[in-house]
Amino acid sequence: MSLIVQKYGGTSVADLERIHNVAKRVAKTYDQNNDVVVILSAMAGVTDNLIDMANTIAESPDKRELDVLLATGEQTTAALLAMTLKKMNYPALSMLGHQAGVITDRSYGNARIIEIGAEYILKLIQKRNIVVVAGFQGSDVGGNITTLGRGGSDTSAVAIASALKADICEIYTDVDGIYTADPNICEKARKIDRISYDEMLNMASLGAKVLQIRSVGFAKKYNVPVHVRSSFSEEEGTMVVSEDAGMESLVVSAVTHDKNQARITLTKVQDRPGVAAKIFAPLAEAGIVVDMIIQNIRPEGQTDLTFTIPKAQFKTAMEIERKVAEEIEAQDVLGDKNIAMVSVVGVGMKNHSGVASMMFNTLARENINIMMISTSEIRISCVIEEKYTELAVRVLHTAFGLDKED
Amino acid sequence: MSLIVQKYGGTSVADLERIHNVAKRVAKTYDQNNDVVVILSAMAGVTDNLIDMANTIAESPDKRELDVLLATGEQTTAALLAMTLKKMNYPALSMLGHQAGVITDRSYGNARIIEIGAEYILKLIQKRNIVVVAGFQGSDVGGNITTLGRGGSDTSAVAIASALKADICEIYTDVDGIYTADPNICEKARKIDRISYDEMLNMASLGAKVLQIRSVGFAKKYNVPVHVRSSFSEEEGTMVVSEDAGMESLVVSAVTHDKNQARITLTKVQDRPGVAAKIFAPLAEAGIVVDMIIQNIRPEGQTDLTFTIPKAQFKTAMEIERKVAEEIEAQDVLGDKNIAMVSVVGVGMKNHSGVASMMFNTLARENINIMMISTSEIRISCVIEEKYTELAVRVLHTAFGLDKED
Repeated sequence: MSLIVQKYGGTSVADLERIHNVAKRVAKTYDQNNDVVVILSAMAGVTDNLIDMANTIAESPDKRELDVLLATGEQTTAALLAMTLKKMNYPALSMLGHQAGVITDRSYGNARIIEIGAEYILKLIQKRNIVVVAGFQGSDVGGNITTLGRGGSDTSAVAIASALKADICEIYTDVDGIYTADPNICEKARKIDRISYDEMLNMASLGAKVLQIRSVGFAKKYNVPVHVRSSFSEEEGTMVVSEDAGMESLVVSAVTHDKNQARITLTKVQDRPGVAAKIFAPLAEAGIVVDMIIQNIRPEGQTDLTFTIPKAQFKTAMEIERKVAEEIEAQDVLGDKNIAMVSVVGVGMKNHSGVASMMFNTLARENINIMMISTSEIRISCVIEEKYTELAVRVLHTAFGLDKED
Repeated sequence: MSLIVQKYGGTSVADLERIHNVAKRVAKTYDQNNDVVVILSAMAGVTDNLIDMANTIAESPDKRELDVLLATGEQTTAALLAMTLKKMNYPALSMLGHQAGVITDRSYGNARIIEIGAEYILKLIQKRNIVVVAGFQGSDVGGNITTLGRGGSDTSAVAIASALKADICEIYTDVDGIYTADPNICEKARKIDRISYDEMLNMASLGAKVLQIRSVGFAKKYNVPVHVRSSFSEEEGTMVVSEDAGMESLVVSAVTHDKNQARITLTKVQDRPGVAAKIFAPLAEAGIVVDMIIQNIRPEGQTDLTFTIPKAQFKTAMEIERKVAEEIEAQDVLGDKNIAMVSVVGVGMKNHSGVASMMFNTLARENINIMMISTSEIRISCVIEEKYTELAVRVLHTAFGLDKED
C-alpha cells in the first residue's frame, strides 16, 4: 500500500464531466489499495474571472480580500469532486487550506508555506478516507485566508506530499510530461522519462510552464518524488527526482525558450559606486523582476548596462529608466521587445566542456545573432531576436542529440 | 454611537453596482459615527445555480460537501463588499462564518447555531473597523463548514446582533417592509410600522416570505429589535419588536396567504390507538412536514383524516399514503393540490372575541367554501379552493379594517 498525492490542474477539472473523470482516476488508485490525497486547482478560467471582477472594483484590490475571493475557486472544485466520489460510494471528504493545516505567512497573494499540520489528514486516511484538499490556499496563524500565487496548487501538492511523507506526488496536467523542447515548435521533441530537480528548476524559470517553480524547489528541498503526467491518458509522464536516481546520461536534457522578456539598455553609464542600485532599486519597488543583467565596460570608464524584464512590464520599466537615466546622466535608454531567450539545460553539463561553444556555433551557423549570454552550472541562456526563436530551438535540439528517432 | 448590524439579501448584492450601493449605505451609517457589522447573502441566483450543479452530480448530493460548495456564495459577496469599502478608504475586512465564531451543530444544510464567539468581531469594531460577515454559514466544533438553510443569512444577522448586543439589526431586502397583505394581490395593503415577534412568527410560517422564520424566533428569544427595510430606498420599513413596545391596537394586523400547500384525506380510517402514528411516521421519515391536521369522527367509529403538506411533495406523499391506507385498511386516499391557506394574524385577537366568526362570515358572503380550519392564540387559518385566494385576501383585508385610505 502506498500513500499517493494527486494534484489536478484547472483544465483537468474544467467542468463536471472532467471532474467525473478525475473521480474515476482517484477511485481506481484507491481501489488498487493505495491511500489517496487529492489537491485541486480551480476550474480553468475561474481564477481569471474572479480577478477581473476584483479589478472592476479597484485597480489594486485589497490583497486580503482578493485572497478570500480567489479561495472560492478551489473550494468549489474540492466540494464537487468529494461530492462526485461520495456519489460513487467512496468515503471522500473535502478540506479547505486552513482545515488541512496549511499555515502560511501573511503575504496575501503570494504567501509562503510555514508549516503543514498533517495530523488531521493522516488520521482520516488511516481510516481509509479519500481526502480532497483545495489547493492554492492556506491561512496565516491568525486564521486569515491566504493564497500561494499563480500555480500555487502545485506547491500545495508537493508541500502536503512532503508533510504526509507520501510515496509520490503525481501532478496531473493537460500535457503528458516534460519535453526536451516545446513540441509545438519542435516536432522532434521527446518526452523525458526522468529529470532532476535542478534541471526542472532551471527549465521552469526558463519558460517551461508545466510546474510552478516554487513547487520544484520544495520538492527538491524535501526530496519529494514528483510524477508529471496527463489527466487525459494512462501513459506514464515524467519523473522529477533527485540527481543520483539514475539520470539519462545526456549532456543537455532540454532546450527551452521564453518569449515573454524584453530588453532595456542604458548607454554610457558613469561607472561609479552606487550607480547599479540607482538603476535597479526603482524597478524592484515597482515589483518588476529583472532576470539577466550584463555590463559592457567601455574604454573611457563608462559602461553600457543591459537587462531583461517581463515583456508585460516593458512600458512601466522604460518610463522608470528614462527618469533614472536623466538622474545618473546616462546617455540614452534603448528598449527592445522583440527578443527571446533560448536555453540549454542539463546536469551533464557539469562534467562536459564545449557545451557553450557548441551552442554559439550552432546559432552562428544559422546567422542568429546572440545579444546576451548568461550561464549557470547546468544551463546556458542566450538572448536572440524573437523571430529566430523556433529556428534556434530546433537547431539546438538537433545539435545536442535530443531529436527523437523517426 | 450605536452598534448597527445590517443584513443585505441576494437582490441587494446581485451585481457589482448594487454591491457598490450597499457599500455607500454602510459607509454612510459608519460616518454617522456608528459601529457597523454587515451580514451578506450570496448574489441572487448563485445559490440556486450551485444547487443545480450539485444535483447534476447526484440527486441527493452529499450534505457536508454541498455546504462547502454553497458557502462559496457568501464568501464571494463578503470579499467583494470589503474590497469595495477598502477602495473607498474605509477600514473594512471580510469574515467567513467560522472566522466570525458562528458555531453550529452538524446538521449540514440546516444547522442550528449553538454559540457565537463575538470577542473577535468586538475587538475589531472597537478599533473602528467595518466587519463584513458571510451570512448563511458557520462551522461545527470540528471545523466542518455548515449552512443554516434557506434564508439563513437572516438568522446569521439576528444571532450576531444578539451576541454583539447590537442596538438594532437592520434587514435590507427588495421590499420596503412588512405589509398587511401581499401588495401584489391586495392593492389596499398598507406597510406596517411596528409588529410583534409573535405576529411576525405567525406571518412567516403562513407564507409571508420577507424574514426567515427561524430568525424571528431568535430575535424574539434574545429580544433583538429588527428593522425590515428596502436597500433601494431611504424610507423606514417595519420594526419587529416585542409586544409591549406600543403596538398598533388593531385586532388583526395582517392577512396572509399560502398557495404552496396540498391536501390529502384518508377516508374511513378505523379509529384505533396507534393509527395516527402509522399515517404520519412514514411522512416524517421522508422529510415531509405536515402542517394542518383535522379529523372528522364518523358515527360508526371511523374517522376521515385530512392534512396538508407542501405542494412540491404531493406526489411522494400520495404514494406513501396509498401504501399506508392499504395497511391500515382505510377506505380511500383523496388528494387535492388546488388549495390555498388564508390566515388572519394579530396579537389583538387575544382580547377580542368574534374574530373567527367575522372571518367565516366574510368568506361565506363570497360563497367561498372553508375546507379546513386551524387556530392559534393569535391567528386563524382557513383552507379554501386555490382559485379564491386573491378574493379571500381582499375581502378579509377590508373586513378587518386594514385597507389604506385612498
